[in-house]
Amino acid sequence: MITPLLSSTTATAFPVTTYSAPNLSSSLSTNFTSSLTLGLGPGLGRTTTPLRTIASTLTRTRNTNFVQVRASSSSSPSLPVIEKETPETQRPHTFLRESDNERSPNTNSTAVRARFEKMIREAQDHVCSAIEAVDGNGMFKEDVWSRPGGGGGMSRVLQDGAVFEKAGVNVSVVYGVMPPEAYRAAKPLSSEDKPGPVPFFAAGISSVLHPKNPFAPTLHFNYRYFETDAPTDAPGAPRQWWFGGGTDLTPAYIFEEDVKHFHSVQKSACDKFDPSFYPRFKKWCDDYFYIKHRGERRGLGGIFFDDLNDYDQEMLLSFATECANSVVPAYIPIIEKRKDTPFLDQHKAWQQLRRGRYVEFNLVYDRGTTFGLKTGGRIESILVSLPLTARWEYDHKPEEGSEEWKLLDACINPKEWI
Amino acid sequence: MITPLLSSTTATAFPVTTYSAPNLSSSLSTNFTSSLTLGLGPGLGRTTTPLRTIASTLTRTRNTNFVQVRASSSSSPSLPVIEKETPETQRPHTFLRESDNERSPNTNSTAVRARFEKMIREAQDHVCSAIEAVDGNGMFKEDVWSRPGGGGGMSRVLQDGAVFEKAGVNVSVVYGVMPPEAYRAAKPLSSEDKPGPVPFFAAGISSVLHPKNPFAPTLHFNYRYFETDAPTDAPGAPRQWWFGGGTDLTPAYIFEEDVKHFHSVQKSACDKFDPSFYPRFKKWCDDYFYIKHRGERRGLGGIFFDDLNDYDQEMLLSFATECANSVVPAYIPIIEKRKDTPFLDQHKAWQQLRRGRYVEFNLVYDRGTTFGLKTGGRIESILVSLPLTARWEYDHKPEEGSEEWKLLDACINPKEWI
Repeated sequence: MITPLLSSTTATAFPVTTYSAPNLSSSLSTNFTSSLTLGLGPGLGRTTTPLRTIASTLTRTRNTNFVQVRASSSSSPSLPVIEKETPETQRPHTFLRESDNERSPNTNSTAVRARFEKMIREAQDHVCSAIEAVDGNGMFKEDVWSRPGGGGGMSRVLQDGAVFEKAGVNVSVVYGVMPPEAYRAAKPLSSEDKPGPVPFFAAGISSVLHPKNPFAPTLHFNYRYFETDAPTDAPGAPRQWWFGGGTDLTPAYIFEEDVKHFHSVQKSACDKFDPSFYPRFKKWCDDYFYIKHRGERRGLGGIFFDDLNDYDQEMLLSFATECANSVVPAYIPIIEKRKDTPFLDQHKAWQQLRRGRYVEFNLVYDRGTTFGLKTGGRIESILVSLPLTARWEYDHKPEEGSEEWKLLDACINPKEWI
Repeated sequence: MITPLLSSTTATAFPVTTYSAPNLSSSLSTNFTSSLTLGLGPGLGRTTTPLRTIASTLTRTRNTNFVQVRASSSSSPSLPVIEKETPETQRPHTFLRESDNERSPNTNSTAVRARFEKMIREAQDHVCSAIEAVDGNGMFKEDVWSRPGGGGGMSRVLQDGAVFEKAGVNVSVVYGVMPPEAYRAAKPLSSEDKPGPVPFFAAGISSVLHPKNPFAPTLHFNYRYFETDAPTDAPGAPRQWWFGGGTDLTPAYIFEEDVKHFHSVQKSACDKFDPSFYPRFKKWCDDYFYIKHRGERRGLGGIFFDDLNDYDQEMLLSFATECANSVVPAYIPIIEKRKDTPFLDQHKAWQQLRRGRYVEFNLVYDRGTTFGLKTGGRIESILVSLPLTARWEYDHKPEEGSEEWKLLDACINPKEWI
């Protein structure tokens, strides 16, 4: 059962950082540039552009305090201010703006927004129920928020359960405006064009599930949808859209049957849509979750895709839905099987070392995390992906041929599991 | 007693990442730029330039696999290759190139190099002996390495002692070449100048000491010296030099007498040279160790300075020496007093949460760490600064007025301790 935590007394549960607008402005310009040079893992797309970088990082940060341009004519239109989130005591029927619930006469993209939000909220319910059922003790606590200009989200976190050390499942809907520089870099304007901020819409679900037992793997998944949101002739028009996401497995020990099962479910989901999807997105996943300074991946992969818009929009919506629906059948059977496996201190210590690698990847490389930290997003939502505990030993090297060594070897040399 | 660990069988203890030169080249250009836009904490200097940024980050990374230009005329002079470190079984008398042990007729800066190396090696011995004495059980293990073109270093790590969870004390001497773009940005050349790589020399000591007892504070210190190393008329000539460094304290709980003692020792060291040093470097420290996404400092500060060259060179060498010599009297009495204080699980959990903040600062903001990770430095030396264990709880907030809250408040609102 999911317990809404919010009441009128919980306003202080939402820390609000105050930024002066000029600082924010300068910090944003830096970030939009830097996310291109620093935040990208290798192989992140064939033709990655600043625009699409923003899209994928934004939706992955769930609760980015994003930039809104003041409507007031007295303030400069290039002066961004942060719109703070407001805690809510009730889950709203939708986080969409009212106008987004009407179907546009010329395009069905309004409908896609609404259907994507419905899909991620159902996936959140579905995954949280399955996690609570397998845990048997821990319950998710929920934080709901909205923003005055539209959008909002729900963070659900289960901490210190019987089976799960920390499990977070978040959804969010963001209406934002990207600085003209970012859009200009993506789509050069003629000298007569007067660049202005480009409005966008982004929605996503994001989750990291860290079990206690060192033989039970960590799971991460994230699915997101992005649109530019510009009136005709404005920068960003015509409306463009992209899908992104993925599901990946991070064990501390390899049970080959578990990894094969996990990858098989991903492949089945992919194969329903395009036979090229699984091999392509499997490799993309291995490339993305790469801890460059270690020369190793965070875990044993799965699927990952980004900036996807070169297929039919309806097909990609169905594909993302299928992927989100595959999380429970891909993961829960593994947890059922491993949650009570007896273990020794040495197994726990190795799990903790691998958790350290998880922290390194997320804080140093993950686009969503690094972008979120720099743009003043809701820190607790962004960093819920970090494990409850982690460990760093100086110059630790597993003995060659040991179970720990086998895991490390598979992180260094990604394997084909099916 | 310090035990050299190296023998002819330990060659595998030195992981060597192989890079292809073109990749390295492109990665370096990115990093030299990005360290300017991303790696800088606020208030890091009055006139920070790319050149000086490189200086301070390089010396802080201790064992950066730095770039050497091939002497061979058959390879392009703009093609950098990494010079790998070689494990050594003996501590050499000096890591300096032979030519650096001769005093130049026109300048005494050769002497400064040699005297700085001597100072940091003595400081390493002094601090390690004091740590082993107070620990009573743990002993430092030592890794020594050199590079064929000159330079090298010694990492000393004590892990899982009676008092210390993890203590690292490293020295290094680096001869490197910075890409011309970095130097050009610092010092615009006329159109007739043909830019080339700028050779430099850097040496430093760097240390992080994490005790086990949650009432005993973590200490970090680092002192470094940097010179450009160019023949007359070459880019980088005439020779330029800078000093940097600092010592800071990171407790999980505040004992006011401890913090006052620590800051008093720093102030005494500063006051011997210039009455403006302590207030200026105390503020610089509070500004540098700022975890921007949390709005809080990593700890309770101390002193920090960077890019210092606007005082007499001899005076600054003496000042850095005084600071390094102040580490033991500033820190060891606090450890003696707190190492056996009884504590509860809740105290340990809070210490672990603060260790999580330490990880966040080092991986996201610290210039030495982020630069080292991106340039392919020796990872184990760079990340020895991370604690053995750390913890992240979702939305943890200490109760107002509690001891945990008082520490957090002092990290959010830096105080004057003396």
